[in-house]
Amino acid sequence: MRGRATNYVTDLIIRNIGQLITMDGAEGPRVGPSMRELGLVEGGAVASGNGRVLAVGTESEVLASVDTGPDTVVIDAGDRVVTPGLVDPHTHAVFAATREGEFAMRIEGRSYEEIAEAGGGIRSSVRSLRRATADLLRENGRGTVDLMLEHGTTTVEIKSGYGLSLESELKMLRVISELADTHVVDIVPTFLGAHEFPDEWRDDREGYVDHLIDDMIPAVAAEELARFCDVFCEEGVFTVEQSRRVLTAARAHGMEPKLHADELHSFGAAELAAELGAASADHLVRVSDEGMAALAASGVVAVLLPGTTLSLGGAAFAPARRLIDAGVPVALATDCNPGSSMTESMQIILALASMVLRMTPEEALVAATVNAAAALRAENVVGSLAPGRQCDLVIWEVDDYRAIPYHYGVNLAAAVVKRGSVVVSRGSLAA
Amino acid sequence: MRGRATNYVTDLIIRNIGQLITMDGAEGPRVGPSMRELGLVEGGAVASGNGRVLAVGTESEVLASVDTGPDTVVIDAGDRVVTPGLVDPHTHAVFAATREGEFAMRIEGRSYEEIAEAGGGIRSSVRSLRRATADLLRENGRGTVDLMLEHGTTTVEIKSGYGLSLESELKMLRVISELADTHVVDIVPTFLGAHEFPDEWRDDREGYVDHLIDDMIPAVAAEELARFCDVFCEEGVFTVEQSRRVLTAARAHGMEPKLHADELHSFGAAELAAELGAASADHLVRVSDEGMAALAASGVVAVLLPGTTLSLGGAAFAPARRLIDAGVPVALATDCNPGSSMTESMQIILALASMVLRMTPEEALVAATVNAAAALRAENVVGSLAPGRQCDLVIWEVDDYRAIPYHYGVNLAAAVVKRGSVVVSRGSLAA
Repeated sequence: MRGRATNYVTDLIIRNIGQLITMDGAEGPRVGPSMRELGLVEGGAVASGNGRVLAVGTESEVLASVDTGPDTVVIDAGDRVVTPGLVDPHTHAVFAATREGEFAMRIEGRSYEEIAEAGGGIRSSVRSLRRATADLLRENGRGTVDLMLEHGTTTVEIKSGYGLSLESELKMLRVISELADTHVVDIVPTFLGAHEFPDEWRDDREGYVDHLIDDMIPAVAAEELARFCDVFCEEGVFTVEQSRRVLTAARAHGMEPKLHADELHSFGAAELAAELGAASADHLVRVSDEGMAALAASGVVAVLLPGTTLSLGGAAFAPARRLIDAGVPVALATDCNPGSSMTESMQIILALASMVLRMTPEEALVAATVNAAAALRAENVVGSLAPGRQCDLVIWEVDDYRAIPYHYGVNLAAAVVKRGSVVVSRGSLAA
Repeated sequence: MRGRATNYVTDLIIRNIGQLITMDGAEGPRVGPSMRELGLVEGGAVASGNGRVLAVGTESEVLASVDTGPDTVVIDAGDRVVTPGLVDPHTHAVFAATREGEFAMRIEGRSYEEIAEAGGGIRSSVRSLRRATADLLRENGRGTVDLMLEHGTTTVEIKSGYGLSLESELKMLRVISELADTHVVDIVPTFLGAHEFPDEWRDDREGYVDHLIDDMIPAVAAEELARFCDVFCEEGVFTVEQSRRVLTAARAHGMEPKLHADELHSFGAAELAAELGAASADHLVRVSDEGMAALAASGVVAVLLPGTTLSLGGAAFAPARRLIDAGVPVALATDCNPGSSMTESMQIILALASMVLRMTPEEALVAATVNAAAALRAENVVGSLAPGRQCDLVIWEVDDYRAIPYHYGVNLAAAVVKRGSVVVSRGSLAA
């Protein structure tokens, strides 16, 4: 049991937890064999006060260590599994319109180029976002984050990148900021002005990079609209050198680097992420052996997005097993976006991680909690249940944690607690 | 618009349907290019009386053709998509215990043989089912079918096959029968005594086949407990000749044949299904060219189970495109079972059908409705919306039917209507 002296009143106790997954015990992200360590307590309980964990451990230990009062809410977890709230560290969850038409075109065998010529691709989302009002974007985004929460996600990163002009990127980031201020889910904003080259700059790519560095990054920083800066470093999009320039400028303005890395080609992007000490390198379907070694040496978190590969009909998935064996901390994310991964649920990503990436249930859960938090440099706040951490957790409709990736396609979250308050309850735990 | 003279009172009208997918227009299962024909009506409505469709077509046509009274319920679909209720034609949805431990062992690289030696596989479900009370089985089964319904399934086939003794198969089929009598979902029972050889008969396989034919099939038929008889025809399980004997005997007792065919090896099972005029041949991951041609010539429905291949970590999926091109009517099913596909949701199967089987959204929807009904020889009752058919339908939380396979991992069913009654309503359509 871990508890600490505190003056907080105990607001909430979750007791009778069959398997309590604390993820406690490690500093920073987990690598290699430690990705299988769950900090598992059988017959556990969690106590929360003022939104933070006061005590966590066996039920008798926790009940003995905290003071309860008439206002303390006690929830019987009915021998279910409890984990930290899921963290989704890579999404494009604010957008104006879905793109199911392109999805159907891809199945018909139309190429990326044909779809782009027909008006599809990222530039389709750019056109619709530029036309959309902030109200529409906020309403769509709120619905998306609501669904994420219902499926157990309590912290989510959201990127800009469908504006690709100073005005539209600021509009998008302000919407993300308003959502962050008003939604119970913790929302971490990332500036992704380097998502693609907008039509008006396609003949002057270096000019757009200069515009990003000289105008957009300073403006985003001035309003404190982003914690991270991301770049789509890929053949035909941003080169390694352009990516280095953008991320170096962003860091000088207080935004930490992230990278869309080696998704479609082995491009040296993982190596760049390591060189820059990025918070994460994401996708990595085509990461090279050198890239893996560089990530491992630098401790950059690899964020894998199996739902994207599946949605795009790809045959090759990111080499999760080789990344784990190489000592790279691996995380998982939905990549929630209208073009290549239209899902709000980290649960289906956990299933795909086990089924197609061959990650064990333990590794998948670590990747969706403590390591996902590390990809947002937030592992000391969320992603594990230890005294002082935010009391974000999920009560699962299962009695064995291995059923979380196994039982797929349905929502297994029975209840979700955010900062010590029950914000979702379903099925037999419904209020 | 199609309507017919009737004396029924109009109980229910669904109006303001943005895209109404009727699946009307074909007799029997759809093949080839007709698998893309949805019978789509924009601005549609459906009227129901006494559990059956009275009229379906554009809103003005339907409203003009039916009489309404003070008790007529009118639901505004809010421009959403409506389809026939989904039909799930292949499940093992009655079982005693989940098997997430085996799932984890497979990811660790343990072989089928090692898992079987450790007590896993079908025989694990047989041991737990034989010990289980009928009450437990009924309670588990009801929960499973409830979840299916919440995800839009209004007709489901459930197989026996975890008993593998006269007594336990009868116990299981009686539970399925009780569920069928009491659950709002239509449940179609299938006898699968030939699912595996039970331990007590492993040294006398022909003896078990004789027992199936001489004792079990007559007993099942005497109580009218099964509409179909299925056999796991596969290397190491039932040979083609044993399968032919079992299914021929079953037919003589009024049970129509189905087959678990060519899942792991090209085994001649599809050819046997064609020879017997089976209602369906299921799995077909390894179907031969000859098998495909035989299925096409005989009109046997191919029931594909992509969730099973995914859950088992398989690299090869059933050749859906080649089956469709060959003129085989293709259907989809969950294969809901604790060993190789733990899902209740046809929605994730629709997504996988598009993403990994490369079926278009239209083909996937046909495969999950009218063709799935044909796999149960019920296409004149369910699977389409036409006058006289059962009024089973789903109102979807989307405005374009292509979003149903595209938007994955979350429940998109806003409401489910079964025999003209709203039995599920969620989100913005919640009662």
